[in-house]
Amino acid sequence: MTRDTAREAGRRERLRAVAAEQGLDAVLVTNLLNVRYLTGFTGSNGALLLRADGRDLFGTDGRYTTQAQAQVPDVELLVDRGTATALAARTTGRVGYESHEVTVDGLRALERAAGDAELVSIRRAVEALRAIKDDGEVESLRRACAVADRALAELAAEGALRPGRTELEVGRELDARMLALGAESPSFETIVATGANSAIPHHRPDATVLRDGDFLKLDFGATVDGYHSDMTRTLVLGQAADWQREVYELVAASQAAGRAALAVGADVVAVDAASRDVIVAAGHGDHFTHGLGHGVGLEIHEAPGISALGAGTLAAGMAVTVEPGVYLPGHGGVRIEDTLVVTADEPELLTLTSKELLVL
Amino acid sequence: MTRDTAREAGRRERLRAVAAEQGLDAVLVTNLLNVRYLTGFTGSNGALLLRADGRDLFGTDGRYTTQAQAQVPDVELLVDRGTATALAARTTGRVGYESHEVTVDGLRALERAAGDAELVSIRRAVEALRAIKDDGEVESLRRACAVADRALAELAAEGALRPGRTELEVGRELDARMLALGAESPSFETIVATGANSAIPHHRPDATVLRDGDFLKLDFGATVDGYHSDMTRTLVLGQAADWQREVYELVAASQAAGRAALAVGADVVAVDAASRDVIVAAGHGDHFTHGLGHGVGLEIHEAPGISALGAGTLAAGMAVTVEPGVYLPGHGGVRIEDTLVVTADEPELLTLTSKELLVL
Repeated sequence: MTRDTAREAGRRERLRAVAAEQGLDAVLVTNLLNVRYLTGFTGSNGALLLRADGRDLFGTDGRYTTQAQAQVPDVELLVDRGTATALAARTTGRVGYESHEVTVDGLRALERAAGDAELVSIRRAVEALRAIKDDGEVESLRRACAVADRALAELAAEGALRPGRTELEVGRELDARMLALGAESPSFETIVATGANSAIPHHRPDATVLRDGDFLKLDFGATVDGYHSDMTRTLVLGQAADWQREVYELVAASQAAGRAALAVGADVVAVDAASRDVIVAAGHGDHFTHGLGHGVGLEIHEAPGISALGAGTLAAGMAVTVEPGVYLPGHGGVRIEDTLVVTADEPELLTLTSKELLVL
Repeated sequence: MTRDTAREAGRRERLRAVAAEQGLDAVLVTNLLNVRYLTGFTGSNGALLLRADGRDLFGTDGRYTTQAQAQVPDVELLVDRGTATALAARTTGRVGYESHEVTVDGLRALERAAGDAELVSIRRAVEALRAIKDDGEVESLRRACAVADRALAELAAEGALRPGRTELEVGRELDARMLALGAESPSFETIVATGANSAIPHHRPDATVLRDGDFLKLDFGATVDGYHSDMTRTLVLGQAADWQREVYELVAASQAAGRAALAVGADVVAVDAASRDVIVAAGHGDHFTHGLGHGVGLEIHEAPGISALGAGTLAAGMAVTVEPGVYLPGHGGVRIEDTLVVTADEPELLTLTSKELLVL
């Protein structure tokens, strides 16, 4: 039985409407995740030529002929090693291309292939569509978050997060557990940071040994159906010192404020500020060195960016992270991060692990 | 103690010599793996401005200040959210950039930042350096291959590759075992393809059940120190039919011919042909639908490409795969792949799992 392709067909029609608004005769989609989003194709080489007249073409190379026929039965197939250039050679008129994705050398090759056709940037038109998740995508994200929640709960219950173990051991067990629970892969390189390492926002786990009284910061996620979950929890091993509780409670309050600001129509800069102001007011503004959050989906970082440098407003169906942190170099740091979906009401929380300070 | 940075410093001097030959005042390296190769930095955002006068600058953002100080102690640090554009703003004269890596939008941003400096393509200059591995890199590849060898041997010995299991289960166990054996991650999405699926060169594992008498094709690898191993083995479950033995022996003979052709100075097109001719002579040329192999290192696919469309010759220290396949649509397929290092003598075989037809 062929799979249901209605979801991808609908997305192509939405992109066709965008192309029509911009007076384009076609759009050449080469970002592989955008191609997957618009066609369902999951191979490592494919491109879509979306045409105003509806005669779309899907391009890939000989390795993927069978897979393309199975996954993209509703779009005409062009098998050619050149893939994108082969599609470009079949264009006329004004053709949109992804200038944020196509390299300088790549554009030169497309222009040579396209002959008289004029290539014009459509920028992040497909990413803009992708920012709003449909019900199926939210369900995939929900499952991805559930895998991460459960992996952490199981490891904690089994005593795997205890003094004497190394960051690397804990990271590998988290990854292996997520795979065992059905993840296709970790969402990104799992961060396990203990003691002073927890003050490094994106510390790569190493042979550092977990010690009594230290922070243990875990930033990780699972990929399910290609969709990424993202969660950070910071625990304390043994007993929490006063300064650790203070930092933790500050970040927790900031994170709650950020979550509360997630609403349809909210400006991303204002959402960042709602959370950041709590930390700034406590005198730790300089210790929160990154943006508040980002969209998640087929990529671990995608639109919308939620930071002081971002632009735009939130819409229903956007899946985003809220992840403030306070990092005290040489001492330790706390980050608390959830993945949520913006809705007309309260945001839906997808990462369900408790945010009470967990002392193991 | 600071880590030994002599290896990366030596690489920067080799790139500086290339820049001098091209009359460049500086090179802006933005490909993250090239940055890692030249500096040792493993974070997710960094760029290197290599200057003819030796006053190099390493750029990253605030998340990575501590990590950059630890990993790149020998290059002046510039912390700025813009990273590459911040470095571009500090250039004058003729500045090389990576036109195969920088997007069309990215070049526009760099040109704005660079003011009067002239940006000119250096193409794949760093990749060309990376194609020749030093002893430390070969040792990392050796360890990565050993992890994959051992993971497969353990699973086979435990009876994990048996009828009744699904491709997904086998793939997840291979991945988990590689992690348990010290891999940072699988090298790429592990391919497990059984029965007719084995005729799909890059089949993504699914719920297909392993059955008696079927081919089981496993294409997988481990990452160690950032270096990727790559190996394919095709087994038979239960008893091998005559047609299976015939296809297997044909691919094995082709693969041996390809390995034998790996020599310093050999043209990559001739290496491809040496292996392919064996399959063509047997009347299966149309069933070998991809190139013979590729370089491996910090990327799973890197220079040199070994195919009819490749260009260039092999040199000592190149790490490459040799992976012919014969795919009979609807029936089954065989691929046999090793990772090897080209040397002045025999190539060094890094993937040591037997290539006898294994009947489980």
